[in-house]
Amino acid sequence: MRIDTYFTFQEVDGAELSGSTVVVIDVLRGTTTIVEALANGAREIFPTESTEDAVKLVSSLGREDSLLCGERKAEKVEGFDLGNSPHEFTSEVVAGKKVVMNLANVTRALRLAQEGDRVLPCALTNLGSVAEELSMAEHISIICIGHEDTFSLDDALCAGHLIERVLSGKEPKKDGALDLNDATRAVRAFAQARKPTESFLSLSAAGRAVIRVGLGDDLALCADVDRHDFVVEMVDQSITRAGA
Amino acid sequence: MRIDTYFTFQEVDGAELSGSTVVVIDVLRGTTTIVEALANGAREIFPTESTEDAVKLVSSLGREDSLLCGERKAEKVEGFDLGNSPHEFTSEVVAGKKVVMNLANVTRALRLAQEGDRVLPCALTNLGSVAEELSMAEHISIICIGHEDTFSLDDALCAGHLIERVLSGKEPKKDGALDLNDATRAVRAFAQARKPTESFLSLSAAGRAVIRVGLGDDLALCADVDRHDFVVEMVDQSITRAGA
Repeated sequence: MRIDTYFTFQEVDGAELSGSTVVVIDVLRGTTTIVEALANGAREIFPTESTEDAVKLVSSLGREDSLLCGERKAEKVEGFDLGNSPHEFTSEVVAGKKVVMNLANVTRALRLAQEGDRVLPCALTNLGSVAEELSMAEHISIICIGHEDTFSLDDALCAGHLIERVLSGKEPKKDGALDLNDATRAVRAFAQARKPTESFLSLSAAGRAVIRVGLGDDLALCADVDRHDFVVEMVDQSITRAGA
Repeated sequence: MRIDTYFTFQEVDGAELSGSTVVVIDVLRGTTTIVEALANGAREIFPTESTEDAVKLVSSLGREDSLLCGERKAEKVEGFDLGNSPHEFTSEVVAGKKVVMNLANVTRALRLAQEGDRVLPCALTNLGSVAEELSMAEHISIICIGHEDTFSLDDALCAGHLIERVLSGKEPKKDGALDLNDATRAVRAFAQARKPTESFLSLSAAGRAVIRVGLGDDLALCADVDRHDFVVEMVDQSITRAGA
């Protein structure tokens, strides 16, 4: 098994993803919100790169069936239905809807990830299911979204715990068959030293940004490991519950 | 105390270094070799960005007093006196000499680091002395050189152990006064989980590259924590033992 971890999508060479299962992580809060929306009955999530693209897409999908969502500096874009706080995506609001989410870097990363064989957005909230899905993969690429184009504590910690779960039981007997890049080894050790708690997430730059805009309650949900037991997958332009 | 860690120099905004003491780390093997050469009596180290610059500088310094050193893909450049293996820099070879070292990314990082107040190249071999020198600093910036422009296990681990030493005894009573960026918190946890041993360094991409060219013996020296008890500093274009 080969596992390559990247701390930002900017450092990823698309060709390296070829043939791999690609996991995309944005704990605070992109992929957590995607998982939450699908848990609460949203039909599909359409990630977009810009507010303009989001507005266009929502009108082509039909305004009555869809929700227009997005944040700027951790706050809801004016005129949009929802921001990017997972707490907003309740079943009352999202069930049966197509959800257009403006998530600039997450969207760019997801599209780049499509150079691989499969694209699995992942959060702490569905960590165990993703780990199980990956257990037979030969080549896994993990793209952390990071914060403001740089290393992010929360995404790296999630990557580390995901790797720990995937590799548990695989060593030492299969050690020789493991091909782990430097970042994979580092986040794994990091995960052995730190649990993904709400209080640890609150120390990260992204966590502090969320707290600053008064949405600190989101952190407990984002840190709720294995809150859900399904995998989500992006195929073409949309994300749905895998196998649903 | 504020500590910012960067995993590559490419992600550093020079303005953020302003007012800080900047530590530059390239365990395999740039800064280890710099420290070793100065331990063994080299008068000054002049880092250069290219072989052409190195050749030019050596002839202006005087060929008889200086050594021309550099590697390409972990091997000595043809026609140069030495490569970048710390074992080559014995006192017989380097004592009293000016050493011109072609270290592309290390040199670029050191020059960028000069946006800060002081520039301290650091390796595991002089970790304790650097930590002591930093104990009263208000703002520390740690630039890891990385490997092939990306995250490197060995540099991050060295950064983590340096931070552990600097902060030991500073918490919890001064916790409120600590301003640590995400990368600083992550490498610190990483260091708590892993010792900087030769065998761990051998897992890194840079370590494997060194082993591949038959210089695996370098790793034990590079992992010899606190082998030396002095700080080295770059002022203008050259690096010397601080206070020497």
